Amino acid sequence: MLIKAGFDIEFGTNAPTPMTGLLSVHPSRNRDLRTPQRIVTSPDIPIYDYIDSFGNVATRFTLPAGGGRISTEFLIEDSGEPDVRAPDVPVTPVQELPEDALPFLLASRYCETERLMQTAWSLFGGIVSARARIEAIVDWVHNHISFGYHNARCTRTAFEGYQERVGVCRDFAHLAVTLSRCMNMPARYCTGYLGDIGIAPVDAPMDFSAWFEVYVDGDWYTYDARHNEPRIGRIVMARGRDATDVAITTSFGTSWLKKFEVTTAEIVEEPMRQAA
Amino acid sequence: MLIKAGFDIEFGTNAPTPMTGLLSVHPSRNRDLRTPQRIVTSPDIPIYDYIDSFGNVATRFTLPAGGGRISTEFLIEDSGEPDVRAPDVPVTPVQELPEDALPFLLASRYCETERLMQTAWSLFGGIVSARARIEAIVDWVHNHISFGYHNARCTRTAFEGYQERVGVCRDFAHLAVTLSRCMNMPARYCTGYLGDIGIAPVDAPMDFSAWFEVYVDGDWYTYDARHNEPRIGRIVMARGRDATDVAITTSFGTSWLKKFEVTTAEIVEEPMRQAA
Amino acid sequence: MLIKAGFDIEFGTNAPTPMTGLLSVHPSRNRDLRTPQRIVTSPDIPIYDYIDSFGNVATRFTLPAGGGRISTEFLIEDSGEPDVRAPDVPVTPVQELPEDALPFLLASRYCETERLMQTAWSLFGGIVSARARIEAIVDWVHNHISFGYHNARCTRTAFEGYQERVGVCRDFAHLAVTLSRCMNMPARYCTGYLGDIGIAPVDAPMDFSAWFEVYVDGDWYTYDARHNEPRIGRIVMARGRDATDVAITTSFGTSWLKKFEVTTAEIVEEPMRQAA
Amino acid sequence: MLIKAGFDIEFGTNAPTPMTGLLSVHPSRNRDLRTPQRIVTSPDIPIYDYIDSFGNVATRFTLPAGGGRISTEFLIEDSGEPDVRAPDVPVTPVQELPEDALPFLLASRYCETERLMQTAWSLFGGIVSARARIEAIVDWVHNHISFGYHNARCTRTAFEGYQERVGVCRDFAHLAVTLSRCMNMPARYCTGYLGDIGIAPVDAPMDFSAWFEVYVDGDWYTYDARHNEPRIGRIVMARGRDATDVAITTSFGTSWLKKFEVTTAEIVEEPMRQAA
Repeated sequence: MLIKAGFDIEFGTNAPTPMTGLLSVHPSRNRDLRTPQRIVTSPDIPIYDYIDSFGNVATRFTLPAGGGRISTEFLIEDSGEPDVRAPDVPVTPVQELPEDALPFLLASRYCETERLMQTAWSLFGGIVSARARIEAIVDWVHNHISFGYHNARCTRTAFEGYQERVGVCRDFAHLAVTLSRCMNMPARYCTGYLGDIGIAPVDAPMDFSAWFEVYVDGDWYTYDARHNEPRIGRIVMARGRDATDVAITTSFGTSWLKKFEVTTAEIVEEPMRQAA
Repeated sequence: MLIKAGFDIEFGTNAPTPMTGLLSVHPSRNRDLRTPQRIVTSPDIPIYDYIDSFGNVATRFTLPAGGGRISTEFLIEDSGEPDVRAPDVPVTPVQELPEDALPFLLASRYCETERLMQTAWSLFGGIVSARARIEAIVDWVHNHISFGYHNARCTRTAFEGYQERVGVCRDFAHLAVTLSRCMNMPARYCTGYLGDIGIAPVDAPMDFSAWFEVYVDGDWYTYDARHNEPRIGRIVMARGRDATDVAITTSFGTSWLKKFEVTTAEIVEEPMRQAA
Repeated sequence: MLIKAGFDIEFGTNAPTPMTGLLSVHPSRNRDLRTPQRIVTSPDIPIYDYIDSFGNVATRFTLPAGGGRISTEFLIEDSGEPDVRAPDVPVTPVQELPEDALPFLLASRYCETERLMQTAWSLFGGIVSARARIEAIVDWVHNHISFGYHNARCTRTAFEGYQERVGVCRDFAHLAVTLSRCMNMPARYCTGYLGDIGIAPVDAPMDFSAWFEVYVDGDWYTYDARHNEPRIGRIVMARGRDATDVAITTSFGTSWLKKFEVTTAEIVEEPMRQAA
Repeated sequence: MLIKAGFDIEFGTNAPTPMTGLLSVHPSRNRDLRTPQRIVTSPDIPIYDYIDSFGNVATRFTLPAGGGRISTEFLIEDSGEPDVRAPDVPVTPVQELPEDALPFLLASRYCETERLMQTAWSLFGGIVSARARIEAIVDWVHNHISFGYHNARCTRTAFEGYQERVGVCRDFAHLAVTLSRCMNMPARYCTGYLGDIGIAPVDAPMDFSAWFEVYVDGDWYTYDARHNEPRIGRIVMARGRDATDVAITTSFGTSWLKKFEVTTAEIVEEPMRQAA
């Protein structure tokens, strides 16, 4: 399956404003690119990439006073397969986890594991299978939180989401991540493109999406507590401990959005017409 | 100066309990070791080291049911010089910071930068010099929080410390780290040995200590909002975003402390006696 | 299967001599340790570990004038399964290789790919299957070189081994690694413990062994051109481009071996005796 | 000083040919960019960057059958200062070197340290100062080898250069690197842009240049055995053990150069004209 994806974001600023961004597909998807994925700015300012401590491609630039625009558009190949469910095996014991999974058991800015430890164990402590445990967590979060864009608040933590019972996709992800970590299942927060592929069209402006991955027995499995169903065509951009680590842009100074468009759609190639 | 340092920690457990620890001096101090720094366990269980994502030496082991003891003792050379103050130069602009300093501008579990941004800028926004800005922050935190061991609460965040105005050394460090980050000065939380060297003896059981480092113009400078004076003989063990990343031990299961002793003291060599 | 492994090495020196060593099992085997793997020195000098650029555990220490001894002994769990053969699938195209496999296609100190490129393609160019290609290379090297300890020369390169047709296990590995790289199959040189497990006892003093790994379709597969048969109980210590990167010890100054003993043996637990 | 730099390289191929390249300035120079440094290909094929194990920006792409063109052009700020000489302090003892400098003491493909060890110590063994030792090495190499483009041979090693006494800039660098390593001074091979800035114009087509860096007491210092004088306006692209690691492009399959142009020149801004 061929997917066209990209964004067009415009900022206003009053003064030169340094920014960092996670604007590229994750390196693990680089080999799927079918066209260059070139980040273009207007005005044409210096811009460069580096790899952050989580292995994501990060970008640095300084918007001039008056602001600017960053955009990209590219084609990428995708398997077209829905998210793979975690296997029905026992939860991997902590002592068998690889070292690089361990940070994803700890608390982070929006995932206060200590505050949800008892809740988590009372809800999910009896479940032994990794698949059953993670899917019970995802189901529970999906039902516990009511979705609504008017519910967005960028400082809401998992514990606050648990108490307030409202949120947007990042709140679903933060709560599920926190409960997974409490239950000794390493969980990392993801952000990326997720188009309405294989589902009925959604009547809302396209945005980047947040989901998470859980570690079981040698692999990371994708789950999405907001949608609570395997989806097709996710293109991961960045992974981290929580939303802090994977903000699309972080501005060190005052800036405001003037435009924000995200596109992700399957490219359906027309069958070649045959002459009669 | 030669310093003898070490610890002797004993845990009780009811079941085999996997643990991770940051039990070794930081690799940057390895070349100062004058004796091996061997982590010994009783019983003599398998134990191994790895390097965490911040560059610290981390240790993994699984305590058997009934618990166990971990200890070490070693000699290390130290310059004997007090902490060096940050230079009196302008705060390094964000666009000139190296990539590896950037994560230390972001929020973390105990450092909610968004919640203290306005406070920070209203208090310190007029200060241009890096030295003056960081020392104003440290002074302010030192005076704002009342120290007391009865004030310890391991879930207290920087914002809560700011509101409650009480805390222990980790709370001083978290608040100073958060205010530094708000003011665009990368700040990382540190833990390690700090003996009563060059000061009057302190009448309290020795513990590990928490302080922080701030980035200015190519180097990281040590500050300590708890003591608010340059100290001699710090031996850094681990650095991270906040206390989450640098816990001495993290237990995945129930364990309780049965013994906890830390030693750090200058070894004063007696002058050789001369026969009459 | 439980394996007891270790070494006891003694050096003479005339002056303090800094050394580095690759003396520990590879981190990927840490979780199999059943006792601590403690490197002990005599005299008891400062010693510390770090991770080298290939991910191996390296050790630094300085032998005093007069020399010293380093030793270890430990128990490690092993699957008891023989080396797994590479799958019978097409050789992975270079454009699909992961980034971290690419350095293992390049030339290195003892693997002059340019000099064997034409030979390699004329010998193996017609073979499409990864398994068939690598096994043809290993067979060919095994038959091309005559083994003999009197043939050891520590500066012999793969090309020289190809011309001289004699060598020890490192020469077999270097030539096979070089030919694999020429054929676009990433290959890395390995060193570690390999006991006489599952084979007839060998009448030669035990030593560390050298073999190599080849990348196919997402995994690295172990091959051994010296023995040319799947073996049981390999315990990898270090991987690198060639023998340069994985020397057991590297001495910066003059030192000489006074003792060199390696042990690796299966521990066969006696069945419990029953009282009559 | 503002420097305009770039290249325009065209390859012919008969079949799709995967390539890797070190086509970007080194990350340490990213903050000096004054315009984006965009690698453009014709045809417009997928292309992406990664960081290699030495910290360089590497680029991957697959040229289609028929070949293609890669080019870039950008402006970069430079201090305008000549290379800084190593300090006149004792050579840093091996036991005090940081871990990440150690690989640059070892042999590599084109730097056979073992073969030049005795020569190096007999020539330079009596020199204690780091500056004096490295400058004696550079002088000696500069005088020992005769420069000439007709002397280029891409498989020539340092030892062969030592014997043949002819070479191009890479041969000067390889021999100086090897002798430095023999003398326990970590040395890394560099490649990048070096224009005729501050010297008389050179009557030869511009090319990328090779030089090296030596580690002394906490810093790496640039030396150039080909030119044997401090130069202005070097823009480092990549560092590695030797030329193997930092090839501008590495082709996995047959390709040939159809065009190869490098530009590096100071941009001298005309003084503004004043109306009479």
